[in-house]
Amino acid sequence: MRINLPDGNVIEVSDDADAKEVASKISNTLAKKAIAAEVNGNLVDIYYKLSDGDTVRIITEKDPEALEILRHSTAHLMAQAVQRLFKDVKVTIGPVIEDGFYYDFDKETPFTETDLEKIEEEMKKIAQENLPIRRKELKKEEAIKLFKDKGEDYKIEIINEIDDEYVSVYEQGEFVDLCRGPHLESTGKIKHFKLLSVAGAYWRGDENNKMLQRIYGTSWFKKSELDDYLKRLEEAKKRDHRKLGKDLELFSTFDEIGAGLICWFPKGARIRSIIEAFWKEEHFKNGYEMLYTPHIGKSTLWETSGHLAFYQENMYSPMDIDGNEYFIKPMNCPFHIMIYKSKVRSYRDLPLRWAELGTVYRYERSGVLHGLLRVRGFTQDDAHIICTQEQIIDEIKEVLNFSLRMWKAFGFESIKGYIATRPEKSVGDDAMWEKATQSLEGAIKDSGIDFEIDEGGGAFYGPKIDLKIKDAIGREWQMTTIQFDFNLPERFDMTYIDKDGKEKRPFMVHRALLGSLERFFGVLIEHYAGAFPIWLAPIQVRIINVSDAQYEYCKEIEKKLKEEGIRVEFDSRNEKIGYKIREAQLQKIPHMIIIGNNEVEAKTVSVRLRNGENKNNLDFYEYISVLKELDKTKSTNLWR
Amino acid sequence: MRINLPDGNVIEVSDDADAKEVASKISNTLAKKAIAAEVNGNLVDIYYKLSDGDTVRIITEKDPEALEILRHSTAHLMAQAVQRLFKDVKVTIGPVIEDGFYYDFDKETPFTETDLEKIEEEMKKIAQENLPIRRKELKKEEAIKLFKDKGEDYKIEIINEIDDEYVSVYEQGEFVDLCRGPHLESTGKIKHFKLLSVAGAYWRGDENNKMLQRIYGTSWFKKSELDDYLKRLEEAKKRDHRKLGKDLELFSTFDEIGAGLICWFPKGARIRSIIEAFWKEEHFKNGYEMLYTPHIGKSTLWETSGHLAFYQENMYSPMDIDGNEYFIKPMNCPFHIMIYKSKVRSYRDLPLRWAELGTVYRYERSGVLHGLLRVRGFTQDDAHIICTQEQIIDEIKEVLNFSLRMWKAFGFESIKGYIATRPEKSVGDDAMWEKATQSLEGAIKDSGIDFEIDEGGGAFYGPKIDLKIKDAIGREWQMTTIQFDFNLPERFDMTYIDKDGKEKRPFMVHRALLGSLERFFGVLIEHYAGAFPIWLAPIQVRIINVSDAQYEYCKEIEKKLKEEGIRVEFDSRNEKIGYKIREAQLQKIPHMIIIGNNEVEAKTVSVRLRNGENKNNLDFYEYISVLKELDKTKSTNLWR
Repeated sequence: MRINLPDGNVIEVSDDADAKEVASKISNTLAKKAIAAEVNGNLVDIYYKLSDGDTVRIITEKDPEALEILRHSTAHLMAQAVQRLFKDVKVTIGPVIEDGFYYDFDKETPFTETDLEKIEEEMKKIAQENLPIRRKELKKEEAIKLFKDKGEDYKIEIINEIDDEYVSVYEQGEFVDLCRGPHLESTGKIKHFKLLSVAGAYWRGDENNKMLQRIYGTSWFKKSELDDYLKRLEEAKKRDHRKLGKDLELFSTFDEIGAGLICWFPKGARIRSIIEAFWKEEHFKNGYEMLYTPHIGKSTLWETSGHLAFYQENMYSPMDIDGNEYFIKPMNCPFHIMIYKSKVRSYRDLPLRWAELGTVYRYERSGVLHGLLRVRGFTQDDAHIICTQEQIIDEIKEVLNFSLRMWKAFGFESIKGYIATRPEKSVGDDAMWEKATQSLEGAIKDSGIDFEIDEGGGAFYGPKIDLKIKDAIGREWQMTTIQFDFNLPERFDMTYIDKDGKEKRPFMVHRALLGSLERFFGVLIEHYAGAFPIWLAPIQVRIINVSDAQYEYCKEIEKKLKEEGIRVEFDSRNEKIGYKIREAQLQKIPHMIIIGNNEVEAKTVSVRLRNGENKNNLDFYEYISVLKELDKTKSTNLWR
Repeated sequence: MRINLPDGNVIEVSDDADAKEVASKISNTLAKKAIAAEVNGNLVDIYYKLSDGDTVRIITEKDPEALEILRHSTAHLMAQAVQRLFKDVKVTIGPVIEDGFYYDFDKETPFTETDLEKIEEEMKKIAQENLPIRRKELKKEEAIKLFKDKGEDYKIEIINEIDDEYVSVYEQGEFVDLCRGPHLESTGKIKHFKLLSVAGAYWRGDENNKMLQRIYGTSWFKKSELDDYLKRLEEAKKRDHRKLGKDLELFSTFDEIGAGLICWFPKGARIRSIIEAFWKEEHFKNGYEMLYTPHIGKSTLWETSGHLAFYQENMYSPMDIDGNEYFIKPMNCPFHIMIYKSKVRSYRDLPLRWAELGTVYRYERSGVLHGLLRVRGFTQDDAHIICTQEQIIDEIKEVLNFSLRMWKAFGFESIKGYIATRPEKSVGDDAMWEKATQSLEGAIKDSGIDFEIDEGGGAFYGPKIDLKIKDAIGREWQMTTIQFDFNLPERFDMTYIDKDGKEKRPFMVHRALLGSLERFFGVLIEHYAGAFPIWLAPIQVRIINVSDAQYEYCKEIEKKLKEEGIRVEFDSRNEKIGYKIREAQLQKIPHMIIIGNNEVEAKTVSVRLRNGENKNNLDFYEYISVLKELDKTKSTNLWR
């Protein structure tokens, strides 16, 4: 039998060869490392029987598919352990998710922490038993009978929905699960896993169905990888913006107001004010103009824009005003377009760069709402660029560079681009798509940003670049988006008069650099773990007196710092100095000015930095200049 | 017969004396000036027959009531003239309004400009005829017969709604009108009037009724007063913010979006950005903290606040989200209160000063919407002060002084206060009202602001101070409001823990200094007639080159000014210099830099100010420092 390899070579194997034999033929090492294979583009088990002329790629730990296979096998392993330990528990489904897997069980009471430990122990035992994991193809009736005997009703429900004549199941010892596969060869290959948490989840996500018990877990090929992951998880937990948002009094939501609707508390709002002021200043510097538009608009507008036809499930129900339907806006674009259309535009007026901190409201299911990261009301740092075809590449370049400068200012250095090109279903002529996609590629190459192309991944109305930024613990967040729109200019019949006196259709680009202020703030909190750099810190300095004897001097210092525009607080409470320092530390205030009798006598200040460093007996005016310099340069350092 | 005078004196008059005889008894001059009288507190005609013991005050031109009487008589005069000129026209009602009067006529076609001229001529004729104006009391049936004979159906409709047995009519020549009076003695007393405009108006303001034709007019005792008024009117027309808003491209509304919903165009938005940045900076300096809260909230919130029970007619209909009703907010307070209640507050935390540029939406009938002055969506410069009883007077003082500083910065100097005290129907105990009202009075006295007291004019939930500011042409605008609220702290059960460990109810004050950004911007446009001072001007400088020969030098200047943060434009069009200057003038740009060959050679700039003054051959850096100084000091001058 002749088998094709990915590098174009052809090898001969025995007539009943499986994928593993191919690996062996290539090298012994590969045979040891082989965990699955891709045959003619389909992932299969390593013991899959080949046919003459098959193209075979061997999957090892290094391939991106490998982790998914491992985790899926770990989910089966967990289900087997659960069924060994808990007699009346039925299995449902157990998919792979980012960094791990889960499995939903039909069980009356939730799993406890102790249950998880026991299950983990049992999983280790089954792994040591090194049970072979084997695929079987069964006729549907056979499969239904198999699961009926085991009392697994959920599996029968799933089988009944499958259209094929045959279904596949995987067996390992006494455990069998309905599954497409592939899987590892045996349970012994599963070594470094951890069960993480439990949650309730409705069967098929439908709240009319039964509540199931979900167990989340993770699994890795190397112990070091598992350890790193658990450490990252621990770190992420400490940085959770919901926890820090509460501890640092930055924001909250209220049941009385509604889920996903953020109230910014004074300290959070202070940071937002700083972000907004900086954002506006930068936009003005970069040739943008601002707009302010209403939060509601008549149905006429949303009919013209197409939102009512294609986006209504994300919009809230209408309000009646004088017999007309008004909708709270899910997007700012139609308002900006109305302003564009308020007069005849000439090529001389272009490019227009119109920005708005526009608050929009979109429906999200309550189950997916998550702190500041997924909300129902949010303020986009929105802008629309309207320009001629000739101007478009320079405009895109400028947006990319602008966003790089912006991210840098906020302390993010690692950025990656994703260009999404024309999908099958789309509007606009080929030449426009071509021109737009070229300008995206040209601009991103020019910017030096590392990027990937997502062929056919664009929206129906135009190609786009998304930028993902990496935070302090290596997590990627999709933030910036630069998106062509060939749809709205057409729908609203936007035009300009060109040099040749002809009416032409301008290019329109939507862009948001930070994305939304809410989501950005969530990421910012996690990036800095709430320890904001001086220029963003709501309180930059807290003055702490050792005793009442220094009260007057502290007041004087406070007054002067305020006059200098420093955000300062004075903790004059009659508490122990250690207690006051600890509290300031918990609030992650960058600087504490500690004033005892020495400082009063010498007319100096002693400063304790948030990182524990001390700068004693500083000249006060010298100190002010350090502070102001750190603030002005947006430094992420605590001292120069 | 003995008649009491307002000064306490008693005079004797003949038994059939009328008010005029009283005037004569006092002085001949008074008799000449007398136009009506107040008898026992009721306004009556000057020929009103007195009874023994009546208290009589003679009304002359100087009394505030006099102008109303004059204008009401002028309305009758106009109606008489109309009926002389237009045969089938029926009269309806003709009340006095601020600075004038109108009268609504049932006439098929609108009055034309020429009609108005003719009517004015006819009015002058009737005035010259000096017809006596006489009151008659008629039984209702008699009155109905009288108006039936004349075919005046509207009058009959009105009479039928009057509960008394008798009604009064006023006769002058062939003309008679149903009227309570009083009126002037004769048509000859009406001398200085002007018909101003026409408009359509539904009978009784109900669009299901017939459309009537309204004529507006004004009337004064002195020619100089009429002339001044017409001049003010002319001036006001030139300053109309709706016209300037269009000419200067500051803002607009769109039918497609909805009436009363403002879209801020780039130049208007630039000014708003400057106002907001200044406003925030000042608030931070004055110890305020910012909040940002959502634009929608669940019905639960509005039930607790009482808005659904008492304010729903001003709110828009609810949106359904996951089976709950959500309302777009008409006020920010409930959101701020939720944040207050998010933790236990101590006396140490107070006072809290929480501000938000909060955009609210309120229903207004489409007929009353007016440019930026009366809208359906607006951004309040809102703040809530939450404090202890001991802190309240200092807080009010601080708010008053803060608002004085604010108004001064925007170029308004003349400010008057109005304190509204407890009305009959109200909530809260006496001691709180007492304390609050005292603090308002104490604070306003302390501030030196001239004020009046409006006894019983407060809202049911607390006393308030309103501030009215006077604009450049002497019109008063009610802007600032400082309003106690005893209702919401109760409804939301707001508390703090006092020094003594007891839970107490804090004081809460709503305040808006500018009122709303939309209305304030409308007033600001009219105050400056669109010629904004340098610190507010969206474009501060326009560079104009005489010919292409100066292009490079102008670009260089433009770049440097931009680097200095100056808002600059370069008009490089190949147009005549005079044309370019005229355009800049129409745009009311403060400075034009005119660059010819001389300036290029000498490396200087020549500056033309908006007022036509020229500053030639200036050192460029010296000029920049002038500009920056004017900007920084918020000067209303065009040059230092």
